Amino acid sequence: MSPRSSFAEAARTRDRIVRTAVEEASCIGLEGLTIGSLADRLAMSKAGVIGPFGSRENLQNAALEQAGQIFRTAVLTPSTALPPGAARLERLIDAWIDYLAECPFPGGCFVTAASTELDGRPGMLRDRLRGVVADWRTFLTAEIAAAQDETTASHRRPDEIATVLIGISMAVNQEIQLLDDESAAQRGRAAMRTAAGLPPSP
Amino acid sequence: MSPRSSFAEAARTRDRIVRTAVEEASCIGLEGLTIGSLADRLAMSKAGVIGPFGSRENLQNAALEQAGQIFRTAVLTPSTALPPGAARLERLIDAWIDYLAECPFPGGCFVTAASTELDGRPGMLRDRLRGVVADWRTFLTAEIAAAQDETTASHRRPDEIATVLIGISMAVNQEIQLLDDESAAQRGRAAMRTAAGLPPSP
Repeated sequence: MSPRSSFAEAARTRDRIVRTAVEEASCIGLEGLTIGSLADRLAMSKAGVIGPFGSRENLQNAALEQAGQIFRTAVLTPSTALPPGAARLERLIDAWIDYLAECPFPGGCFVTAASTELDGRPGMLRDRLRGVVADWRTFLTAEIAAAQDETTASHRRPDEIATVLIGISMAVNQEIQLLDDESAAQRGRAAMRTAAGLPPSP
Repeated sequence: MSPRSSFAEAARTRDRIVRTAVEEASCIGLEGLTIGSLADRLAMSKAGVIGPFGSRENLQNAALEQAGQIFRTAVLTPSTALPPGAARLERLIDAWIDYLAECPFPGGCFVTAASTELDGRPGMLRDRLRGVVADWRTFLTAEIAAAQDETTASHRRPDEIATVLIGISMAVNQEIQLLDDESAAQRGRAAMRTAAGLPPSP
């Protein structure tokens, strides 16, 4: 095997481990991840699973990074071609609700689950997650502020509207994942549009 | 020891175990609860911890029941003397935000954490939690409907407003527990009042 192909092979293996770790952690939590069960699912040795990362904590961290990337691709990419403003916020809300309804994680929104799991466990993982969540809040607040000149919610503070939109996403995630409520996505979309001061869904 | 006092003693022991289980589970999750660590914290034998419940699952279930009771006492009791309507919804929102800000669970809102932990794990615990969450939604939706004649949000559906209020409580819990944001309670109170069509905080 040439050095080039062995690099590519190593990268593919690493990706496969991280993808499986993300799937498993979305169901049982990042702290529930064990090298043994990943090794079983991947038909690999435990040493083979941990090797590319050096430690379980680094593997958990890689899974968190990957989950953040999947969220950004699903929720942000559809609106990046538009300039900041009401139309872009509207596109973002649509993609966000679609992400919750057709969740790429089998166990529901990864970041929401990780948040309640890790908030009481000090350490590197909690710090990284806190960074991901704080970044998303900051970005969303700026998007809301940019849209406010064109919407009817301009009398409310952008950071308050950010709290409401993030909250609705968490409630919709619970209604879908725990309550199996089929009307959750439609209700959540209407609630987000109202909170953001956008016109009702077409 | 008379039979009466030994009954009382057994009930006190059971309560002490459940209370400790609730505290521990609010930090590390219901699935993270181990009989060993409870026995260590309580300075009891493992058999003594599990005895009053018969199984770990029954102990987890008792902790969930107790957490629901603590939530109801904190959030509902202050408003029960009032008739259904806007003043009662206002009192309930105030108590709900106070509960999130001065949370009786060291790891933050127990039900929110259990929800994302258990939604992907079929079984008795998930079923019981689903019942607790569905009951709360039903109750809250009826409270919102009863208040709507007196509020400015009467054009929105009560179940949509329930989603928004529950969502805001989850976002505020995250802002307090993960982001250590000291303005979260005030912002959340304002957001809940706006969503419920109540006048701004005095």
